[in-house]
Amino acid sequence: MAQALTAKGRATRARIVEGAAEVLRAHGVAGTTLDDIRGRTGTSKSQLFHYFPDGKDALLLAVARYEADRVLADQQPHLGRLDSWESWGRWRDVVVERYELQGDQCPLGALFLQVGRSSPGARAIVTELMRQWQEQLARGIRALQGNGLVSADLDVGRTSAALLAGIQGGVSLMMSTGDSAHLRAALDTGIEHLRLSGPGRARTSCGPGTPLP
Amino acid sequence: MAQALTAKGRATRARIVEGAAEVLRAHGVAGTTLDDIRGRTGTSKSQLFHYFPDGKDALLLAVARYEADRVLADQQPHLGRLDSWESWGRWRDVVVERYELQGDQCPLGALFLQVGRSSPGARAIVTELMRQWQEQLARGIRALQGNGLVSADLDVGRTSAALLAGIQGGVSLMMSTGDSAHLRAALDTGIEHLRLSGPGRARTSCGPGTPLP
Repeated sequence: MAQALTAKGRATRARIVEGAAEVLRAHGVAGTTLDDIRGRTGTSKSQLFHYFPDGKDALLLAVARYEADRVLADQQPHLGRLDSWESWGRWRDVVVERYELQGDQCPLGALFLQVGRSSPGARAIVTELMRQWQEQLARGIRALQGNGLVSADLDVGRTSAALLAGIQGGVSLMMSTGDSAHLRAALDTGIEHLRLSGPGRARTSCGPGTPLP
Repeated sequence: MAQALTAKGRATRARIVEGAAEVLRAHGVAGTTLDDIRGRTGTSKSQLFHYFPDGKDALLLAVARYEADRVLADQQPHLGRLDSWESWGRWRDVVVERYELQGDQCPLGALFLQVGRSSPGARAIVTELMRQWQEQLARGIRALQGNGLVSADLDVGRTSAALLAGIQGGVSLMMSTGDSAHLRAALDTGIEHLRLSGPGRARTSCGPGTPLP
């Protein structure tokens, strides 16, 4: 459907999704009707039907895809540039700040609750988000290896998977406890692990806290 | 309420909760009625009311508490005896096996979906489960320290928090992807991190094991 849209059509559709995301963030999935979304985005019923002929769930899935993109966009430009310890530190701060600001609100989780967490559409969005996220972490680890900061022997796939798992678990524990301690611990321990696996071990004479050139 | 029960009353209540847990695991929260639970446990309506006067949600919370206890019980005796690399390895295998067997079923998650994930009762159960789990991991790390296998300078609180976060995230990614790769990666990287922080480094004059002021 989206493929068949003109540039103007795509822009309109994007405007509806963006506006819907704002309304849903503000009032929750349960507290939002299609009329609220139409009001917020200045969209007529027939327009809404034109862009989302399959109804509310299709619109919610489009919003979920938009929110998933935002998860990664919010971590930029740091996530895409993890080639030094400084940039890893900045990225870590941005991730913590993002989730602390979000608090116990999880826009994606709320949407998935509505459309069915295990529906194929929801699963595809989560799987793709996690794949992209892990790939960017892996690229960052390879950049550290390329710059001689981390041992070339480190298993990049496993390490990036573990780091992603730690972030997911840290966020989910934060939703339960209201405290970002686990998220911070996962990020800090994950980065410390990269440092410990680094060539600093081979060269000796400096610890993980030492700024490496 | 439970405190006021006689020993026999406590046994009956426990039998109901255990039977209810089996029914709920087999047929799901949505597919289970109080009558199903009465049938399975041989309990009369008045008996069920006697033990759970607050109704179905109170019974579901009692089952959730039982399931939370099972999460830790399933990891024993290994989780309570993490004093050597061998025991950490056995524990790791048991955790992976437990969650692979469970597949995309999450009895606790399903119960919480019903009683409200953020209801005080559900939150209290999750918080207590996570506290106990992390404390047992911390005790294991301290045992390694006591046996001279891990540097005494390792931050036990942070490391155990990170490991718990990795497990939680690994399990939740497994629910989305159907694959235990992230859970394995989190456990293996977490244990490798303990090894890397080991006393071999602490004895040298530098490195992460070096006491940081």
